[in-house]
Amino acid sequence: MDEQFNADVLIEALPYLRRFSGKIIVIKYGGAAMINEGVRQSVIQDLILMQQVGMRPVLVHGGGPEIDRMLKKLNKESLFVEGLRYTDDETMEIVQMVLAGKVNKGLVNLIQNAGGRAIGISGMDGHLIEAKMLDEKLGYVGEIVAIHPEPIKDLLEKGYIPVVSTIGCDKAGNTYNINADTAAAYIAGALQAESLINMTDTKGVLMDAADPDSLIVRLSLAEIPKLQESGVVTGGMIPKLECCAHAVEKGANRAFIIDGRVPHAILIEMLTDEGIGTMVTA
Amino acid sequence: MDEQFNADVLIEALPYLRRFSGKIIVIKYGGAAMINEGVRQSVIQDLILMQQVGMRPVLVHGGGPEIDRMLKKLNKESLFVEGLRYTDDETMEIVQMVLAGKVNKGLVNLIQNAGGRAIGISGMDGHLIEAKMLDEKLGYVGEIVAIHPEPIKDLLEKGYIPVVSTIGCDKAGNTYNINADTAAAYIAGALQAESLINMTDTKGVLMDAADPDSLIVRLSLAEIPKLQESGVVTGGMIPKLECCAHAVEKGANRAFIIDGRVPHAILIEMLTDEGIGTMVTA
Amino acid sequence: MDEQFNADVLIEALPYLRRFSGKIIVIKYGGAAMINEGVRQSVIQDLILMQQVGMRPVLVHGGGPEIDRMLKKLNKESLFVEGLRYTDDETMEIVQMVLAGKVNKGLVNLIQNAGGRAIGISGMDGHLIEAKMLDEKLGYVGEIVAIHPEPIKDLLEKGYIPVVSTIGCDKAGNTYNINADTAAAYIAGALQAESLINMTDTKGVLMDAADPDSLIVRLSLAEIPKLQESGVVTGGMIPKLECCAHAVEKGANRAFIIDGRVPHAILIEMLTDEGIGTMVTA
Amino acid sequence: MDEQFNADVLIEALPYLRRFSGKIIVIKYGGAAMINEGVRQSVIQDLILMQQVGMRPVLVHGGGPEIDRMLKKLNKESLFVEGLRYTDDETMEIVQMVLAGKVNKGLVNLIQNAGGRAIGISGMDGHLIEAKMLDEKLGYVGEIVAIHPEPIKDLLEKGYIPVVSTIGCDKAGNTYNINADTAAAYIAGALQAESLINMTDTKGVLMDAADPDSLIVRLSLAEIPKLQESGVVTGGMIPKLECCAHAVEKGANRAFIIDGRVPHAILIEMLTDEGIGTMVTA
Amino acid sequence: MDEQFNADVLIEALPYLRRFSGKIIVIKYGGAAMINEGVRQSVIQDLILMQQVGMRPVLVHGGGPEIDRMLKKLNKESLFVEGLRYTDDETMEIVQMVLAGKVNKGLVNLIQNAGGRAIGISGMDGHLIEAKMLDEKLGYVGEIVAIHPEPIKDLLEKGYIPVVSTIGCDKAGNTYNINADTAAAYIAGALQAESLINMTDTKGVLMDAADPDSLIVRLSLAEIPKLQESGVVTGGMIPKLECCAHAVEKGANRAFIIDGRVPHAILIEMLTDEGIGTMVTA
Amino acid sequence: MDEQFNADVLIEALPYLRRFSGKIIVIKYGGAAMINEGVRQSVIQDLILMQQVGMRPVLVHGGGPEIDRMLKKLNKESLFVEGLRYTDDETMEIVQMVLAGKVNKGLVNLIQNAGGRAIGISGMDGHLIEAKMLDEKLGYVGEIVAIHPEPIKDLLEKGYIPVVSTIGCDKAGNTYNINADTAAAYIAGALQAESLINMTDTKGVLMDAADPDSLIVRLSLAEIPKLQESGVVTGGMIPKLECCAHAVEKGANRAFIIDGRVPHAILIEMLTDEGIGTMVTA
Repeated sequence: MDEQFNADVLIEALPYLRRFSGKIIVIKYGGAAMINEGVRQSVIQDLILMQQVGMRPVLVHGGGPEIDRMLKKLNKESLFVEGLRYTDDETMEIVQMVLAGKVNKGLVNLIQNAGGRAIGISGMDGHLIEAKMLDEKLGYVGEIVAIHPEPIKDLLEKGYIPVVSTIGCDKAGNTYNINADTAAAYIAGALQAESLINMTDTKGVLMDAADPDSLIVRLSLAEIPKLQESGVVTGGMIPKLECCAHAVEKGANRAFIIDGRVPHAILIEMLTDEGIGTMVTA
Repeated sequence: MDEQFNADVLIEALPYLRRFSGKIIVIKYGGAAMINEGVRQSVIQDLILMQQVGMRPVLVHGGGPEIDRMLKKLNKESLFVEGLRYTDDETMEIVQMVLAGKVNKGLVNLIQNAGGRAIGISGMDGHLIEAKMLDEKLGYVGEIVAIHPEPIKDLLEKGYIPVVSTIGCDKAGNTYNINADTAAAYIAGALQAESLINMTDTKGVLMDAADPDSLIVRLSLAEIPKLQESGVVTGGMIPKLECCAHAVEKGANRAFIIDGRVPHAILIEMLTDEGIGTMVTA
Repeated sequence: MDEQFNADVLIEALPYLRRFSGKIIVIKYGGAAMINEGVRQSVIQDLILMQQVGMRPVLVHGGGPEIDRMLKKLNKESLFVEGLRYTDDETMEIVQMVLAGKVNKGLVNLIQNAGGRAIGISGMDGHLIEAKMLDEKLGYVGEIVAIHPEPIKDLLEKGYIPVVSTIGCDKAGNTYNINADTAAAYIAGALQAESLINMTDTKGVLMDAADPDSLIVRLSLAEIPKLQESGVVTGGMIPKLECCAHAVEKGANRAFIIDGRVPHAILIEMLTDEGIGTMVTA
Repeated sequence: MDEQFNADVLIEALPYLRRFSGKIIVIKYGGAAMINEGVRQSVIQDLILMQQVGMRPVLVHGGGPEIDRMLKKLNKESLFVEGLRYTDDETMEIVQMVLAGKVNKGLVNLIQNAGGRAIGISGMDGHLIEAKMLDEKLGYVGEIVAIHPEPIKDLLEKGYIPVVSTIGCDKAGNTYNINADTAAAYIAGALQAESLINMTDTKGVLMDAADPDSLIVRLSLAEIPKLQESGVVTGGMIPKLECCAHAVEKGANRAFIIDGRVPHAILIEMLTDEGIGTMVTA
Repeated sequence: MDEQFNADVLIEALPYLRRFSGKIIVIKYGGAAMINEGVRQSVIQDLILMQQVGMRPVLVHGGGPEIDRMLKKLNKESLFVEGLRYTDDETMEIVQMVLAGKVNKGLVNLIQNAGGRAIGISGMDGHLIEAKMLDEKLGYVGEIVAIHPEPIKDLLEKGYIPVVSTIGCDKAGNTYNINADTAAAYIAGALQAESLINMTDTKGVLMDAADPDSLIVRLSLAEIPKLQESGVVTGGMIPKLECCAHAVEKGANRAFIIDGRVPHAILIEMLTDEGIGTMVTA
Repeated sequence: MDEQFNADVLIEALPYLRRFSGKIIVIKYGGAAMINEGVRQSVIQDLILMQQVGMRPVLVHGGGPEIDRMLKKLNKESLFVEGLRYTDDETMEIVQMVLAGKVNKGLVNLIQNAGGRAIGISGMDGHLIEAKMLDEKLGYVGEIVAIHPEPIKDLLEKGYIPVVSTIGCDKAGNTYNINADTAAAYIAGALQAESLINMTDTKGVLMDAADPDSLIVRLSLAEIPKLQESGVVTGGMIPKLECCAHAVEKGANRAFIIDGRVPHAILIEMLTDEGIGTMVTA
């Protein structure tokens, strides 16, 4: 009997519901996972369910593909400085408009229409993300100076799911493009979050990049440098792991790299016996 | 993939979680369902899950079989008056001890050990159930005069699952044996509960007692007298239906007669698309 | 002695401070007043002062010139239907990005850097502005169905100046361009605001358009239709007056049309003996 | 004039009312004092008066005579192991039923009918008394592992007089018979009570057991071992004094051994100039 | 045994303690009762006891004899207009100084030194008593226009016994001498007090002025005019009765005229079975 | 344009409004500044404005001239002991009446009539100022033993401007005349006030008493003894400076000596760029 089965599933989730009740869970959502309609729907549902059962999810998003699409539309060509993209005034304006005006509000709209309550903010709102220029050669690429987490806490207290665009700002009125993974890690640390969940389009950290069954399920802070030195972790996984490490060092309890392409990946990681990615703990 | 399936189940439950968040659900638990170890475990888990996801369950219990067992041990023979059992002083003392001292505390203990928080009370605590003698010929069988629901509300506010023994009392210090179905209905009404769930060992109200597939899924208050007149509802189902009707008339939103033998029957009724018993509404 | 004079000014403001303490003041800011750097600075300072002395200002903004600039950059030509601009999908996307991503966050940034606390939201956040299509011929131009003012109230309670972009949304996920004057009026009504202040680039309602000294200082709801019939009020002033009337009819105490070009026009209207524009009351 | 005299008495009580306002007073009530109808009435009145004038009384009760009566009725003979009564499964069931179902609810009923507000709980409710087996040879006789005082605090906050049966429990679902004097002492310590009042049927600690005028009015913790060594304190008074000492060591301010047979003994001890028993302080 | 007796007295007071818990009791204290040192001490103790056991007493005082003493010291002769004393500027100044500066603070000091907490206010503080001139011929004799009871409520909430001097004021800055009986009645009405207790130096209302045993124990509003017409009530008792009537008409539950010379007269009236004066009810 | 100018003034005040929001400011008001009608009006307005914009002002007053006037009226001659005035019983009574009954209530009345909310208390109310005799030779001249600041905090919490007469009291019921400058300093210290403002009739501390342009704008605690030794500070300025030093030592952030004759001197000191007196800081 199906209904019977469903009830059993709920009961199996009970220990996790209890464990994470009232806890802040920061979800970093971006990249390929943002474009897939089904994945988007599943992320939104996961967030609402988490809130309903008593957790306090915070959604931090990127938006690279949308930014690229808009730059292309404007025939804006990117300058590259030593292999890195230069963010000039005009580009920064586009980044801000796309992230805070389009992607952010689109996510808010999806949450609201699926029955949740959300308010979308950027790093300028309540000066959430204080930043400075990372390197003059890169233009308005920002480095985080401080996180002022009160706006997120205030929204959580009032029962909203905060949706955060990672635009930073300084006291002179400049705005900066901040890497979303980095921002999510800093925010998770500043909020002393229970978990940072980094949604990627890989299975997690693999011992052997060629073997999808070689997933490393659990890593301590101490093990990360060794993995880097031994060459197991390479490429784009390096900064992802560093973000996880940063969040845990600053006070988050755990950080995860999970496969965002798996439907309901967040719920599976948080509410069932078997996780699906790599977990970093102190 | 199993975990995937489980997440889907949680998502399906979401609309119900939202709908019943903060609502009071009174569960009447008794009879055969109390003796079966597996069912008991499943009821306890359901209660804790309901509380965890934001509902406010109240457990009202009976305890007939345990009372019979103790009376037998004491060689106490029951007197019958016009076919009804007479409750003398000594029997009333046993009823109270078994219900408030054994069954009630046993249920509290199960909830606590399964990870919930419970406090067990009787109709004497805070004068929850004010009663009077129903008929002198029956001895200390009580009729409810008033429900003073503050003790239940106070325990809910402090985060406990109230577990209620249906012993009534009057201002002269007498105590009365109160039918648990009736007490649950009055309590659900006084609390303006969202639902009264009456766990029985039948499938619900059947159009044809011989055909388990003839379940009546939904009944309005107006339809109940017709069913009784037409002889569809007979025997022990009559008072059960009347209790449902009473609860709804007094302010409960809905009342259910469900099959307590089905594992997780409460969750299935409250959190999944298909209910499993008969629902009474205004 | 200058300091002496300054103290006298503060003392003169006292009755107004007392009168408006704790009251919600909705300010509509848009058009030419938005582009002038000095005016912008003065509006921001006025908002912060209002909040500091105990009022609860809400800023509703438009952004026409910025939208035009971006559409031009994208070589997006506007279609006109019976003289009205058609808002297609692509235009709507630009409108949303410019208003919610650029103008809104720019204002938030200015408030924060001037020492205030602000959070910027749009009509999608918490479903603040529920809307529907006004006329298929005009595309995504919206008509307000309902204002859900909780997000604004929540932000006010937490001590922020809410900054509102007037993008509406429906439950199907569509977003709509809403006239900012209209939205400000509906919001002021829904919040039962003490005042709606509509900043324009005229002196207010003039008896004789050619004579700047013919300002009508005070209008009752009853007088507005007469002024329209008699032809005194014409052109762009008609919808502005109708917005004022709507706000007052729905529960705002007063509505003003003031000259946004005057530095500190809001403070002058709210805190000094002589107002500077036209006031509409019931 | 009588009324005059009465007013004087109230005034004399004033310094004590002020001193104990808001303070928790744990009363251990048991033994002979429980059977005497007059004494019972006087204890109940004292509790209600204490609550009314601002103290927060907690009643911890035993019930030996009632347990014996029920065991006898059931022809249950007690096994003795090295002179101590063995508590088998069946006996434990009876102990629990009598204490939590009969004595506890009887006291609650008396308080309610005398105008107070009470809720009766046992050590299972909210896992108040966590226990383990003291000695396998004695069966279900429990030793206290921890007191979790939240249920008592929650009931006090909601304005009830908590009435406590001293049944302990462990996480495996076993229940244990706990000595009521010991439990009262642990509870007084865990609550950081102002006073523990142990009602006995002696005058208090006597220097010469044969001389009722040789009452020791005040004892410090340091003096107790000496009294035991010198043989002044013997028999049943030894554990009573040890309970007093335990309560004071764990944080209770004072502990008393008073003569429960004296009408209103509690009030006399708490609210008048001359106490009537032995007081233990740090 | 004395202590035993004392406890009985406390228990007898219990029903009254419960009945008046949290209730506001306005006590008018003045005249001869103010000068007698013993009576003063007894009134102060009664107030503190009332507060301690949960009532909320408010003390309204007069001060005629002290005013006379000061006027005499200043060789200030009183002018009489049609038999009534004229209150000129200078007299008003003395009245205010004596009442608000000496008598009021003296009472506060007594309460504080007896262990209570008091703050003394006049009708000017928080504009408690708004008044106007009664008759130009009488100078600054005031008639009450309105009572603004917030200052008294605020002090009660913060746990103080408010002590009130009956100086009235108007918005022009004038102050007025207000009859203390009248002020107490208006204040009791405005506070919806449980009782107004008017302390006099008579036994109460007598059927036969010559016979102290002819006390009328209870009067309804309807009976008062008849008593006046029939000439039973005469002289100074007429305004006292009218004050009682006014308080009850405006919302006080009961009003008493009691013999202030009896030690602890207030407690006897409030906390014992037999009152000692005349009670007025609706 | 005047209104324009006024708005600019308000904006200039903004940083100060923000800085002092919620802060306690103790104002000592006495001497010549109390007699001048215009100054009085200006002080009252300043207090109300401070409260309205979010500060929490406390007014501590003296009343020497009024006391002298009343003593003269009573032909009471002052005794001098070693050059100091002896305060006998009768004088103390007059001091108390004038300060607590006349001056205090007069100030309260002014604040209320100007639209503020005030309650006037003395050092007896809530035992605010505990004192003892300074020297038997001087009679009832008091030395402060302790400040119990709860009454002031309670009134501030309830939204009143506390107005304080500096009468001290001891537990035996005696009252003492306390120097108002000293009392204000102790109160500012006990309240951990942001500022103590001492209104005098000089410009502040001058380097050269003959040169009004030699004002010392800022002094640290360390510099005060040097100034005294060097003879720069003499006469009545010495105790004033010592009071400032005491307040700062005990926890006030800053203390000011300002020229009370300047209209709105308090506002000028607190809310504009240029102060007008001498500031003492740690």
